[in-house]
Amino acid sequence: MAPEDLVATHHSETRLAQNLGEIVRLLDRHRVLEAMAHQQEGPKRDLLEQLQHRQNVAELNKRVQAMHAADLAYILEALAPEDRLSVWKEVPPQLAADVFVETSDAVRRFLVAETDEALIVALLERLNPEDLAFVFSSLPEEIQARVSLTLESSERSILEETIQYDDLAVGHYMTREWVEADERQSIGDVLRELRARGSLPPQTDHIFVVDGRHVLRGMVALPTLLVQDPATPIVALTGEEFVSFRAIDEAKGAVSAFERYNLVSAPVVDERNKLVGRLTVDAVMDVMRDAASLQALRSGGLTQDEDLFASWWDSARNRWPWLAVNLVTAFMTSRVVGQFEGVIGQLAALAALMPIVASIGGNTGNQTMALVIRSLATDQVQPNRARRVLNKELTIGVVNGLAWGLLVGVFAILIYWRLTLGVVMMAAVLLNLVVAAIAGVLIPLGLHSSGRDPAHGASVLLTFITDGMGFFLFLGLARVFLV
Amino acid sequence: MAPEDLVATHHSETRLAQNLGEIVRLLDRHRVLEAMAHQQEGPKRDLLEQLQHRQNVAELNKRVQAMHAADLAYILEALAPEDRLSVWKEVPPQLAADVFVETSDAVRRFLVAETDEALIVALLERLNPEDLAFVFSSLPEEIQARVSLTLESSERSILEETIQYDDLAVGHYMTREWVEADERQSIGDVLRELRARGSLPPQTDHIFVVDGRHVLRGMVALPTLLVQDPATPIVALTGEEFVSFRAIDEAKGAVSAFERYNLVSAPVVDERNKLVGRLTVDAVMDVMRDAASLQALRSGGLTQDEDLFASWWDSARNRWPWLAVNLVTAFMTSRVVGQFEGVIGQLAALAALMPIVASIGGNTGNQTMALVIRSLATDQVQPNRARRVLNKELTIGVVNGLAWGLLVGVFAILIYWRLTLGVVMMAAVLLNLVVAAIAGVLIPLGLHSSGRDPAHGASVLLTFITDGMGFFLFLGLARVFLV
Repeated sequence: MAPEDLVATHHSETRLAQNLGEIVRLLDRHRVLEAMAHQQEGPKRDLLEQLQHRQNVAELNKRVQAMHAADLAYILEALAPEDRLSVWKEVPPQLAADVFVETSDAVRRFLVAETDEALIVALLERLNPEDLAFVFSSLPEEIQARVSLTLESSERSILEETIQYDDLAVGHYMTREWVEADERQSIGDVLRELRARGSLPPQTDHIFVVDGRHVLRGMVALPTLLVQDPATPIVALTGEEFVSFRAIDEAKGAVSAFERYNLVSAPVVDERNKLVGRLTVDAVMDVMRDAASLQALRSGGLTQDEDLFASWWDSARNRWPWLAVNLVTAFMTSRVVGQFEGVIGQLAALAALMPIVASIGGNTGNQTMALVIRSLATDQVQPNRARRVLNKELTIGVVNGLAWGLLVGVFAILIYWRLTLGVVMMAAVLLNLVVAAIAGVLIPLGLHSSGRDPAHGASVLLTFITDGMGFFLFLGLARVFLV
Repeated sequence: MAPEDLVATHHSETRLAQNLGEIVRLLDRHRVLEAMAHQQEGPKRDLLEQLQHRQNVAELNKRVQAMHAADLAYILEALAPEDRLSVWKEVPPQLAADVFVETSDAVRRFLVAETDEALIVALLERLNPEDLAFVFSSLPEEIQARVSLTLESSERSILEETIQYDDLAVGHYMTREWVEADERQSIGDVLRELRARGSLPPQTDHIFVVDGRHVLRGMVALPTLLVQDPATPIVALTGEEFVSFRAIDEAKGAVSAFERYNLVSAPVVDERNKLVGRLTVDAVMDVMRDAASLQALRSGGLTQDEDLFASWWDSARNRWPWLAVNLVTAFMTSRVVGQFEGVIGQLAALAALMPIVASIGGNTGNQTMALVIRSLATDQVQPNRARRVLNKELTIGVVNGLAWGLLVGVFAILIYWRLTLGVVMMAAVLLNLVVAAIAGVLIPLGLHSSGRDPAHGASVLLTFITDGMGFFLFLGLARVFLV
């Protein structure tokens, strides 16, 4: 390998961005050439142009075929629908199968809808049963049925076993490829078997040791095999404690364990401790990414992942559930204000000032909630410590309420020249920050203890409370003391 | 290892939660016994109680010493300050050094502040220069200086080299422990060297091959060494393309590469392609976790990580910067409403309805923004595709605006029995959703192209625009058509 090649391996991100840019350029040129060809149909179309066109397609084809499946999947996600199809058509069959597995669920559904069914079935037949199980839920039922029929019985049973696990369970993410040794073998025996095998599954850093009934007895790190005397019995090296998972465990828990103990792979067992699979760090990173991505989308009020280039109709519908919830809370808030229309009619300044009270409350409450949700995600809030957190947040609420309430009160006095208005404003801010602190602690704790995801919908609920209470406190105090 | 021990290795998360629960129980008992001891001072204190007390401390000590450093770090983070110190006192010196590295920055600063300086220095002296560099920025300057002096010159140069890298660079996260082979060696030579070495650094899945000038020539997977003929020259196995990083690269980019190519470790080189370090998947998971955690906190309007049990004063101050920004935008929004006090005075219903218009706009804009930010994070939005995304979001805005605007308009008519009010309401919602779509696309794109993190502050800016424009559009239309 020449040093120049080596330089080319650096900056994988830059290279990927360049590939994407280059493909977009080729596609744009393709479109221009197509348009020109349409304008001057028939014999008039000149040779040079045809040549350019063919060259352009050849260049696109060459670039696509040289790419890694994961990179192509990324590029398909980034392209608009018609470009996506132009590139997809250039991907050779075996590469296409890998790309299909690597790409996002939204893009996979798009490809299935736009590709001839026979081609999709042929592509799926190239996949091993585990990869097939991974993409199975994004396939239409007819295709699921057709592909199932083409499988051998052993493959079908792996497929059926895998899709039975919950999407969030370790069993859904584990692989069935691992290296095992019998507890009666010596290191020399194991090394001989490995040499006969020729290659090991990706991310193999441990050999799993099992007994005659296939019960997991321990594991041995690969480097240990290299450095120990071949005559040593393998079981002598399995002494250390190790981490394993059950296939029905929540995958989320595996993420913390992999992070905490710096694991590369770990055995997965059934309820009788028999070895059934292996969890690797790349699958764990997928779990982590999925969780982070879902949380970001949920905090924006989206129920599921969305293809950036999905049809506007699909996208619009994806956004309705949370819009509907938001609308209901907005209506209710509106009715709170509605009860005070008499006061507002007498003093319209109240309408101008009331959003400030609500806004400060929402902001503070969301800060508290972000901290509590993060602590809950790592199980670090013990029930008997919740009161302590609440007390602290209440203290902060009172301190911030006095400080910012004073500022807001002075602002109101300077603009409207009414002392009582400023005092009412200050009192409302103070009280609303106390409400925000309580809601910010109790909403995520409540959602968590009822078994729900505290991040989901917590922000909508909190804003509803801080808006509603903010308006109620401010306008209520105004009715008593101002008019 | 008996099968019962094996069962105990399962469910690492459950076990950790049990450990935390058990430690909290011991600490609570400790506190009760202490309180009792204070009540009946002197000879009155009975023997049984003293015995209980001693037993309790011994049990806590035993449990703490048996734990993994990462688990203890997690438990320290979860405990309230005085409990944290009780546990910290029980941690033996070598374990304490590892716990100190593993725990969060916030807790680390707390431990430094609460522990005798001489003890902290002794603990830091146990760390290798890389771990020391990792925790260096959370140490007070006097301690930094004292520790630097105790280092040997080779260690000090590693420390100085490491802390020179930016917190977000690959160099900050890389390790200096790796296994390398000279390109002239055979597999047999390398295996002999490995055996002589006895153990390999954690997460070693590849041997890096370098030339005489220490320039990286390629890498060989560990399993390959096991299965190939020992006479083969090592350089014959480095043919495949591989991914490497430069120490000054952004660590964020390494996360995508590790995810995309399922890496366990990768070489890090300097600008002349000389091997200077190794990036491992556990460090990459740390980068991923830090980024996700920071984003969650930022979306809640917190500038930095916060110890859940930090003093209320520190916590309050951590929350001020965003509260101040929020207050400024709230004041400005308030002044928008202030311009329409005349209209509101004539028709107080406007004050009750205006939060609905603002709220729907904020919700829709945040949905759009969540999608655009996620696409920007993966570099999937090409500049020439931005217009397309904007067009689509505008279409969705108009469709949703018509649908939800109608609903909201009907609501207004049913409550106030005024047709024009309903029509004004509907028009305002429609227009504000168009504003929200534009802002939701352009704000993150603008922040991104000016080199800033699009997630930081985008939500505050968007809410400001949708609130302000919502009020302005609704009240403005009302002034023209209603009063």
